[in-house]
Amino acid sequence: MRTLTVDLGERSYPIMIGPGLLQQADSYTPWIRSKQVMVVTNETVAPLYLNKVLSALGDFQTAEVVLPDGERYKNLDFLTQIFDALLQNRFDRSCTLLALGGGVIGDMTGFAAASYQRGVDFVQVPTTLLSQVDSSVGGKTGVNHPLGKNMIGAFHQPRCVVADTGSLKTLPDRELSAGLAEVIKYGLINDLEFLQWLEQNMTSLLNRDADALAHAIERSCQNKAAIVAADEREAGQRALLNLGHTFGHAIEAGMGYGEWLHGEAVAAGMCMAAEMSRRMGWISREDVERIRHLIDAAGLPVDPPESLSGERFLELMAVDKKVQGGKMRLVLMQSLGQSVLVDQFERDALESTVFRD
Amino acid sequence: MRTLTVDLGERSYPIMIGPGLLQQADSYTPWIRSKQVMVVTNETVAPLYLNKVLSALGDFQTAEVVLPDGERYKNLDFLTQIFDALLQNRFDRSCTLLALGGGVIGDMTGFAAASYQRGVDFVQVPTTLLSQVDSSVGGKTGVNHPLGKNMIGAFHQPRCVVADTGSLKTLPDRELSAGLAEVIKYGLINDLEFLQWLEQNMTSLLNRDADALAHAIERSCQNKAAIVAADEREAGQRALLNLGHTFGHAIEAGMGYGEWLHGEAVAAGMCMAAEMSRRMGWISREDVERIRHLIDAAGLPVDPPESLSGERFLELMAVDKKVQGGKMRLVLMQSLGQSVLVDQFERDALESTVFRD
Repeated sequence: MRTLTVDLGERSYPIMIGPGLLQQADSYTPWIRSKQVMVVTNETVAPLYLNKVLSALGDFQTAEVVLPDGERYKNLDFLTQIFDALLQNRFDRSCTLLALGGGVIGDMTGFAAASYQRGVDFVQVPTTLLSQVDSSVGGKTGVNHPLGKNMIGAFHQPRCVVADTGSLKTLPDRELSAGLAEVIKYGLINDLEFLQWLEQNMTSLLNRDADALAHAIERSCQNKAAIVAADEREAGQRALLNLGHTFGHAIEAGMGYGEWLHGEAVAAGMCMAAEMSRRMGWISREDVERIRHLIDAAGLPVDPPESLSGERFLELMAVDKKVQGGKMRLVLMQSLGQSVLVDQFERDALESTVFRD
Repeated sequence: MRTLTVDLGERSYPIMIGPGLLQQADSYTPWIRSKQVMVVTNETVAPLYLNKVLSALGDFQTAEVVLPDGERYKNLDFLTQIFDALLQNRFDRSCTLLALGGGVIGDMTGFAAASYQRGVDFVQVPTTLLSQVDSSVGGKTGVNHPLGKNMIGAFHQPRCVVADTGSLKTLPDRELSAGLAEVIKYGLINDLEFLQWLEQNMTSLLNRDADALAHAIERSCQNKAAIVAADEREAGQRALLNLGHTFGHAIEAGMGYGEWLHGEAVAAGMCMAAEMSRRMGWISREDVERIRHLIDAAGLPVDPPESLSGERFLELMAVDKKVQGGKMRLVLMQSLGQSVLVDQFERDALESTVFRD
């Protein structure tokens, strides 16, 4: 087992990474301060892991909520089901909520924990690669509103994160690849050494080798934690996490949400950011090819969908929330393995990238 | 105008108290950091004060949400209307929410501000005496769940509180009295001098004299702020704010919520706490009479409803949330003007109080 501590003073917490962790009592007992634990999961994950987690929690008074699986249930209506279960089971303000599932379950459970009786403890057991590398650090929780994603939420830090690499064995290939997009992102943001490691170990990762996965998760979480911590001193650092996301969001919105997985859109978006950076003269054609090759090797798309025109791309990017004060901000690559947030860029470089001239 | 600063380090904020404040731009402009301000109010308050507030906010881009009036609308469904209005009006994460109304509006608006885009600014313009003395300090926000009051919420501090004593001119007598119950509570908790001042100035307060009201609000807020601040060092201090509330909640629940106003139930509850304290030998018969006389002079009930039996009282008190680890805790009076939280008390004293032997 690898353990990484996210340093937040009094609210510091460990991320434990390794195979078989979710079924071990030791993964939870030292971090849960309450008698009562409410496990929140979904219909896909419950048959696979709910009983294992409940067994590991044998010393606690447990109950569970099983939500339907999918982003479209990430709203206030389904959040209410968590509150209903807590109150029906007479859970008091010293209880703990445990999120067992992917990002949707983590975000909803975290927000329920932030809000129940004005804040109770929260443990994360992410079962997808994406949620293990992305939701474990940062404390963002919330639900969607019909008019916007993640519009209602809170910052709420977990007491611990249990990232069981064994749970990735049951993850569909397409979702594993989508998670790898975010892993590759950390290499491209500011970790050339990790990028090289990923080039050498992509096959092991796709074969779900426990050691390789644990290293990729640990290094991604370390990188994210460093960026989030730096943002408190250096405004805007956190924006680097959006590498590939402004292009990616345009793809997601343009194709209709759910058509492309978020990680797939980010993958193509990172290739577009690389291409634009090359047109700015910052990285070489060889760098772009290396990035595309790695993303392709991870089973991810390297080009945006044919059906999305350049005009539509520019339109969709202009309404993205990263536009501040009417100005578009983009994360581009200053060199291979070093990204930077820019609000000054050559319009030509952007246009020739989205029009694929 | 009187100004009181609630000292919370970086999150410190002023409470401004005086007549005519809600229609003055100066009450808001120094404290609002955004261009966009969403005013949240209800159908009773809107016709009286909404236009005045909007005029005072002339330099801002404003919009409003008018909710129905009443505690029964304090739930997630009606909270959604605030999020709908924010998103329909394209309010961004730098916006401010302004609560114009009583405690229900303040609690809902505060929680909406805590949750919208994971937290935006919030200004309180309480228009009832109860909300001016009770909701201005402490940062508690939230909504009810069918199975419990204030079960879903957050701690979220306002940027400023504008307590306009002029708005109390339109407050129904019964609600003014209900607010006075909480004012008297602060005298009984630990401020004998204020208790004496209230005895001498009750007529002015009932006549809605602006100076008298401003003093009562300021002193109540000061007392609450000191108790809330002390609680960070001395666990349990904050529980003193529940003086009269364990008895009072039993009255509210026993009669059906809404039958007795919260302040009325607390008033009778404080008389019961006084009576029980006398039976414990802590305060004199004369002290009890003095308390009953003051509460009566404020237009408030001094006895619980006849229809509520002693047995039912004990039952209802046992399920109150102040019961911790199966043990009932009560706030009693050690002496006139000095209350204390006790979990050890003579069962006889409690029973003879609720059975009115």
